[in-house]
Amino acid sequence: MDSPVRVALLGYGVVGSEVARLLREQDGDLVARVGAPLDLVGIAVRRRLDRSRPVDMPPELFTTDAHALVTRGNIDVVIEVIGGIEPARSLILAGLEAGASVVTANKALLAEDGATLFSAAEKAQRDLYFEAAVAGAIPIIRPLRESMAGDKVRRVLGIVNGTTNFILDQMDTSGAGFDEALADAQARGYAESDPTADVEGFDAADKAAILASLAFHTRVTAADVHREGISGITAHDIASAKQLDCVIKLLAICDSNERPGGDEVCVRVHPAMISRSHPLASVRGAFNAVFVESDAAGELMFYGQGAGGAPTASAVLGDVVTVARNRLGSVTGGGESTYAKCDIAPISETLTRYHIALDVEDSPGVLAVVATVFAQHEVSIQTLRQAGRGRDAELVVVTHVARDFALAATVEDLRTLPVVRQVTSVVRVVGAGPS
Amino acid sequence: MDSPVRVALLGYGVVGSEVARLLREQDGDLVARVGAPLDLVGIAVRRRLDRSRPVDMPPELFTTDAHALVTRGNIDVVIEVIGGIEPARSLILAGLEAGASVVTANKALLAEDGATLFSAAEKAQRDLYFEAAVAGAIPIIRPLRESMAGDKVRRVLGIVNGTTNFILDQMDTSGAGFDEALADAQARGYAESDPTADVEGFDAADKAAILASLAFHTRVTAADVHREGISGITAHDIASAKQLDCVIKLLAICDSNERPGGDEVCVRVHPAMISRSHPLASVRGAFNAVFVESDAAGELMFYGQGAGGAPTASAVLGDVVTVARNRLGSVTGGGESTYAKCDIAPISETLTRYHIALDVEDSPGVLAVVATVFAQHEVSIQTLRQAGRGRDAELVVVTHVARDFALAATVEDLRTLPVVRQVTSVVRVVGAGPS
Repeated sequence: MDSPVRVALLGYGVVGSEVARLLREQDGDLVARVGAPLDLVGIAVRRRLDRSRPVDMPPELFTTDAHALVTRGNIDVVIEVIGGIEPARSLILAGLEAGASVVTANKALLAEDGATLFSAAEKAQRDLYFEAAVAGAIPIIRPLRESMAGDKVRRVLGIVNGTTNFILDQMDTSGAGFDEALADAQARGYAESDPTADVEGFDAADKAAILASLAFHTRVTAADVHREGISGITAHDIASAKQLDCVIKLLAICDSNERPGGDEVCVRVHPAMISRSHPLASVRGAFNAVFVESDAAGELMFYGQGAGGAPTASAVLGDVVTVARNRLGSVTGGGESTYAKCDIAPISETLTRYHIALDVEDSPGVLAVVATVFAQHEVSIQTLRQAGRGRDAELVVVTHVARDFALAATVEDLRTLPVVRQVTSVVRVVGAGPS
Repeated sequence: MDSPVRVALLGYGVVGSEVARLLREQDGDLVARVGAPLDLVGIAVRRRLDRSRPVDMPPELFTTDAHALVTRGNIDVVIEVIGGIEPARSLILAGLEAGASVVTANKALLAEDGATLFSAAEKAQRDLYFEAAVAGAIPIIRPLRESMAGDKVRRVLGIVNGTTNFILDQMDTSGAGFDEALADAQARGYAESDPTADVEGFDAADKAAILASLAFHTRVTAADVHREGISGITAHDIASAKQLDCVIKLLAICDSNERPGGDEVCVRVHPAMISRSHPLASVRGAFNAVFVESDAAGELMFYGQGAGGAPTASAVLGDVVTVARNRLGSVTGGGESTYAKCDIAPISETLTRYHIALDVEDSPGVLAVVATVFAQHEVSIQTLRQAGRGRDAELVVVTHVARDFALAATVEDLRTLPVVRQVTSVVRVVGAGPS
């Protein structure tokens, strides 16, 4: 049996306390799987023991000096579950420099400045693992990095934010409006009191950047991700989706488009209508799922809990076991793979489909006027449904695939038409094929 | 750039030819991901080039002397996609002894005699990888071995045989009987002309043994797996499942039961009714899925294509990339993990639930007679439904959880009752909880 692997834990919130609990409870199994004991030698917290900790641990383990803990020089593995950019980044860099490998769940930091972390890990010849950063307990990082390394991934579609999936699912099943469903999510603890990071898609955009980087072997940052949230989704949109046998999901969409000079990637987060027959449509409540399309494997889906203390801690501990085994064998796992160096395509150039609902005058010739606007932008209409409602009518148009800028310009022009009283719904449609 | 990694391919059927194609077509990507070229130096086939090959490769690569190929002494990675026990086992052992790492898709060999292979790999200090052996393209080996190494898996439920899932799905959607659905599967190429290995559950049992070994860190062989196929499933069973809002699937079920002296595992393959609301129920056609329940991660599901040339080749190539990188770094990945050394529980001791349908006389007192038999075996009835049909009636009983031997004995006694004309359906029921 090798000598113990010394572990420092940064952060002791919902995830950190579960990590500590698992390290303690499953000691026998972990020892056998690692080949040596995992020794939790310190837990960095923001404030001294001024409140009851979720899991009781020996008080002498706690410190408020995280920097001193990671730079002790005898730490083998630093687990960072503080979140946010600073002080997490400085602490990870200091830990690597002091010779520790790092396991982190920090999606925001990886998406904003992963390059700095990866190059520090490479320089230090240490591991940087982050399975917990995307989709919580769901193993998706390892499958993309390793299992699919012999394949060519074309698209990743992810439901990677449980809060927004819960809200949209509630709206779909109960007919509630956005505000009501958000309040319900907050009451149940699925949404923060300030829900911006979730409902406006910032959290999903961070995860999309990480997924795209791995899937396409290129560097994608949060700033490269086009982002739209779900706060504009109305009960009317949901009802409209139902009529098309669709459901609305907030999707992280990572596309790789072949071009002669080198593939181009487009990464975006926005609400989208998706057919109820698509495997992602049945992902209910706060669950997450990542759907991958590749040349050889075809369609794969990974499903599970995307957040929460224990599920996230499961992913963290899996990484800790790997990293600890690597330490004992004096090796490191694979680092960042960015050889492809793909260009980032703006969403305006992306091929997609729109669902557009319009309140129009119920008079002869309206259809021709509306259709002309689509034709002017060379946007082809797939289906058009008209429902008279007394003095005016609703037109619902689903387009064929077109460049996003042409679709957006079409909507802008529709708004200026005298026969159009209001554009009541614009939602992208995602399905099989390039859309 | 390192010198090339020399790869020998054993087998050139549906999977082997796809592996060769991917090695050739994706050379640029593979080189970047491995850090060196992958050089396919030989392909062992059973017969000389006496028929057109599915993928054209240089004729000089082909040989009928597989043993000479793997023992050349300069092979880095042997890919074994011949299948079956011999000569695959001898060739893998010879390859390891000659210094090659091995990637195999051979579920039968791993399930029958994995121990011999793993110990040979350990002795030779070489890798033995087998992602393609279970559920084709779906990454499930790596997640179980690595991602979940910090968690405690309690149960694995798998739809791991596409042929039987296609047949059962056809029976469910079209109302066809088993023979008709099998003929359809054969006509579409989803079933072999001799379908025994699939429909009698042998293929699924091999995969169940592999999954259980990984999930519970113990050694489970095919001989440890209780196996029942689907050839006895009737249209009546399917209709009966529908009335309970269930669907019948051939499930590989791996359970770990806590006991004071050490956990006990029970591994079995049999058709089972499962609620339509369960994620596995929506796995249609020839798709596969593996559902994992663990302490910290909760419920996870992995979904994708379980067979076919390209999907299986994707899994093989992912392993080849990992193994080749390990060769370049002069390291090996993790070997077999069997520290838990769990006892195998026979199915008779397993807790499960039965669905039992009976044709009975439609006379007063029948219900009491039937209920008495259940009571004598201490089997508790959860639901009982009676439908009069003229001179006789159908009774449908779903039990609570009980030991399988008690349930089986109950059925035997029911068959001997004078009021029971026929036991028309006996199918286990699987759902939430210990069943």
